[in-house]
Amino acid sequence: MKRQKYCRESFSTMTELILPNDTNTLNNLMGGRLMHLMDIVAAISAQRHCNRVVVTASVDNVSFNRPIGLGYVVTLQAQVTRAFNSSMEVHIEVFAENIPAQKRYQTNEAFFTFVAVDQTGHPIDVPQAVPENEREQELYDGALQRRQLRLVLAGRMKPEDAPELRSIFEVNKKEDS
Amino acid sequence: MKRQKYCRESFSTMTELILPNDTNTLNNLMGGRLMHLMDIVAAISAQRHCNRVVVTASVDNVSFNRPIGLGYVVTLQAQVTRAFNSSMEVHIEVFAENIPAQKRYQTNEAFFTFVAVDQTGHPIDVPQAVPENEREQELYDGALQRRQLRLVLAGRMKPEDAPELRSIFEVNKKEDS
Amino acid sequence: MKRQKYCRESFSTMTELILPNDTNTLNNLMGGRLMHLMDIVAAISAQRHCNRVVVTASVDNVSFNRPIGLGYVVTLQAQVTRAFNSSMEVHIEVFAENIPAQKRYQTNEAFFTFVAVDQTGHPIDVPQAVPENEREQELYDGALQRRQLRLVLAGRMKPEDAPELRSIFEVNKKEDS
Amino acid sequence: MKRQKYCRESFSTMTELILPNDTNTLNNLMGGRLMHLMDIVAAISAQRHCNRVVVTASVDNVSFNRPIGLGYVVTLQAQVTRAFNSSMEVHIEVFAENIPAQKRYQTNEAFFTFVAVDQTGHPIDVPQAVPENEREQELYDGALQRRQLRLVLAGRMKPEDAPELRSIFEVNKKEDS
Amino acid sequence: MKRQKYCRESFSTMTELILPNDTNTLNNLMGGRLMHLMDIVAAISAQRHCNRVVVTASVDNVSFNRPIGLGYVVTLQAQVTRAFNSSMEVHIEVFAENIPAQKRYQTNEAFFTFVAVDQTGHPIDVPQAVPENEREQELYDGALQRRQLRLVLAGRMKPEDAPELRSIFEVNKKEDS
Amino acid sequence: MKRQKYCRESFSTMTELILPNDTNTLNNLMGGRLMHLMDIVAAISAQRHCNRVVVTASVDNVSFNRPIGLGYVVTLQAQVTRAFNSSMEVHIEVFAENIPAQKRYQTNEAFFTFVAVDQTGHPIDVPQAVPENEREQELYDGALQRRQLRLVLAGRMKPEDAPELRSIFEVNKKEDS
Repeated sequence: MKRQKYCRESFSTMTELILPNDTNTLNNLMGGRLMHLMDIVAAISAQRHCNRVVVTASVDNVSFNRPIGLGYVVTLQAQVTRAFNSSMEVHIEVFAENIPAQKRYQTNEAFFTFVAVDQTGHPIDVPQAVPENEREQELYDGALQRRQLRLVLAGRMKPEDAPELRSIFEVNKKEDS
Repeated sequence: MKRQKYCRESFSTMTELILPNDTNTLNNLMGGRLMHLMDIVAAISAQRHCNRVVVTASVDNVSFNRPIGLGYVVTLQAQVTRAFNSSMEVHIEVFAENIPAQKRYQTNEAFFTFVAVDQTGHPIDVPQAVPENEREQELYDGALQRRQLRLVLAGRMKPEDAPELRSIFEVNKKEDS
Repeated sequence: MKRQKYCRESFSTMTELILPNDTNTLNNLMGGRLMHLMDIVAAISAQRHCNRVVVTASVDNVSFNRPIGLGYVVTLQAQVTRAFNSSMEVHIEVFAENIPAQKRYQTNEAFFTFVAVDQTGHPIDVPQAVPENEREQELYDGALQRRQLRLVLAGRMKPEDAPELRSIFEVNKKEDS
Repeated sequence: MKRQKYCRESFSTMTELILPNDTNTLNNLMGGRLMHLMDIVAAISAQRHCNRVVVTASVDNVSFNRPIGLGYVVTLQAQVTRAFNSSMEVHIEVFAENIPAQKRYQTNEAFFTFVAVDQTGHPIDVPQAVPENEREQELYDGALQRRQLRLVLAGRMKPEDAPELRSIFEVNKKEDS
Repeated sequence: MKRQKYCRESFSTMTELILPNDTNTLNNLMGGRLMHLMDIVAAISAQRHCNRVVVTASVDNVSFNRPIGLGYVVTLQAQVTRAFNSSMEVHIEVFAENIPAQKRYQTNEAFFTFVAVDQTGHPIDVPQAVPENEREQELYDGALQRRQLRLVLAGRMKPEDAPELRSIFEVNKKEDS
Repeated sequence: MKRQKYCRESFSTMTELILPNDTNTLNNLMGGRLMHLMDIVAAISAQRHCNRVVVTASVDNVSFNRPIGLGYVVTLQAQVTRAFNSSMEVHIEVFAENIPAQKRYQTNEAFFTFVAVDQTGHPIDVPQAVPENEREQELYDGALQRRQLRLVLAGRMKPEDAPELRSIFEVNKKEDS
């Protein structure tokens, strides 16, 4: 039987101070630099789940809604939501703080996928991820749908083979008929 | 009437040499570092389209299929596919080269969206993007669908208001009935 | 009456992946790079306590006992132990993890002192730090002694004006008489 | 008999220009970045003494009294003060220059300790350090006391076994009796 | 017979965004940072010509006439002009763009020389570079003269053995007689 | 009368440890990174001569003859050789040390030119540079010839207006007649 680990065992948090080189000409953190940080914290989380070297397999849609200024503190929190054979989906939440102004707000949320590999770079199996509370269960359940969308968008699965995806467009179909 | 610019006027290309700090313990380029580069070249492309400061608004699904080693040369090519009011979708293609081994292959493709802003950070209108050949027309046409998917995934549009999205799942629906 | 804040409100944690440029020719993290990270996490913690810009005032003795290798994950935890007029002492603990090998161990512990300043760089008052448990109380109580040692070592206090320091050498004196 | 080298043979000097990423939101050099530079110049000095790879063993109390601004030039000077079995104490002095304003002042002074190691990371013996003038002799003599304080603070020596430490608190004791 | 390659096969272009750490206190790109970029793009071009690891052998006179500001986009274009035994001369042109201001201008032009080496660092032969148009022919023809100047300046050739150099000072000589 | 300063007052020395990101795939320092360091130390030297902000105006021919490995220590020494109206020529010498192997050798020598500017970037006069010994006098005397070569190569002076340049090609001319 396959090994199991609790989702929370992979919880990782990272705090960064926004320095001049991280910013654009409006003195705000550049999106690409933030994705770089998200990738590192998510990779650490995936590593903690499987105790293996991991490589980034995909990044889901990320929206950037609120700017993060120079001198702000960024906190990133990552946790594995679900494991498949050799891959793990990681959920990342990003918070920005302007400490002197006492403002703190969530800026982003994203799902990154990692694959565990051996020293030659070949994929290897990872433990199952076990959710323990409602929030984790919800993320665990949604992982299947997000995985199908990922595969359809990457052209590696046909839409008709992705039953979980239909729920997104369910209303749509009903109204059509 | 709104200003217009050809898509190709925004074409931008960037070449980078992969250095030790860009790599993981397998000596391959880290996904987050690549996204950082993609964001910079795409921002330059969007800037060229609108001649304004731009900020990253969203990043679509990106897959990482083939590793890029230390000492490889990475070439990124970006071009605006379509402009909406104040936002522009940019298409990015990434190629890796192991020059001594004479190997060159495409590693990624992605769509990033940027918003043009004034010096106070408020969105401002951008010129329309005009496609000139079949490939550009195809990317232009697909932009509407990708935009709806983006908005649905960000929870800012209801699936039933996204008619362009149906085509992805068209087959699906037909088989259902 | 002076404002008060709980010590734990300043708790900050930072996670970093050790990259090639952080390491020496033995592939271990350089001491100076680790102190750089300690300074950033401690500054964030001090900022959280006083909601002001802070500058490093001093660093106490730090020992480096165990090497931290390339690819390891370093976790730094910082919390304010006690506040004086415009200065705050921050306690930092550093842990290293070799995740694939499932090894985790504490590598360092240190005390850094920060001063809160206004936009012209002049010191300003900070809230008192209130300990809530035994561990925090212990760190709070020890802060006075460490402060005297710091001032004596910096030549800004005479040993005879540092009564708290005697306890370190108490045994010594008794044996002398 | 043990090899000997003059202290001055290890003299090393480093000059750095303060760039934006080195500074905080007040545009002053961050303490942690300065400690990073101090560690590099001191390691070079220790290497020159023993012609071996060296690792940082400890950092003594450092005070930061005067800010160093963006665009300033920082000069660091390091020299071995005394060698023990496999360890060397290095004295570092830091000077800041605002060249256009023709201001130059000392900002810091510190003692770092390094251990010489072989390629497997095990400590190996180093030559004795021979002082040649009054200033070097003074630093040489003080090294024993600083070493005892270091060991006492690291919990590796009992105060009663540190006779050199008493001199710091001598006055204290006399006044007590 | 020796292998041949067209000059244009080595064409390489690099685009960079000027970030804060690249700039001096006037907020302009530092000359040394620009030469760093020139070296990277020229090395990529030389690698493309010979499909080997290359090392910088020399840099010809470079003038810096127009400043490049923070937030500007720099485009560097490099192409091999001529190959000798194991060395290649690369021509580099640098353009700066202030995109919001719609200004674009050439800032520099330079010639760098690279040597192809094997894995032990020893020089190895490279293909001949074949010019195909007037501009390339002109650069090809001038390469001999520049090479002689380089060798004379490096003290490795006597002026009397450098016939191609005379043309520079031809007028001079005629007026003398 | 114009202000004067001794050449040696501008002497500046910089020591750097070669880290992984500075090196190519043969683990040797990249030429462009070395030029970056040369530019910084030379700029500090020029600043010390004129007590003004300076910008790089030109870089003379630089040869790279001996590789500098990872972990080596590089020492750069810079000193103003001669000042013209608003420009200063700086002589830079580079030494590499493999400390554990007890090897030290000179790797490069170069001349960089800087212009002193006011806060709007306009050139301003600098003090004359006064040589005090034979070596400094030799560098001072040669500066005129190097300046003419620089101007001829940049197309800003005609060869017939550069009398100092003839001495390089003197032998040449005599043999012709």
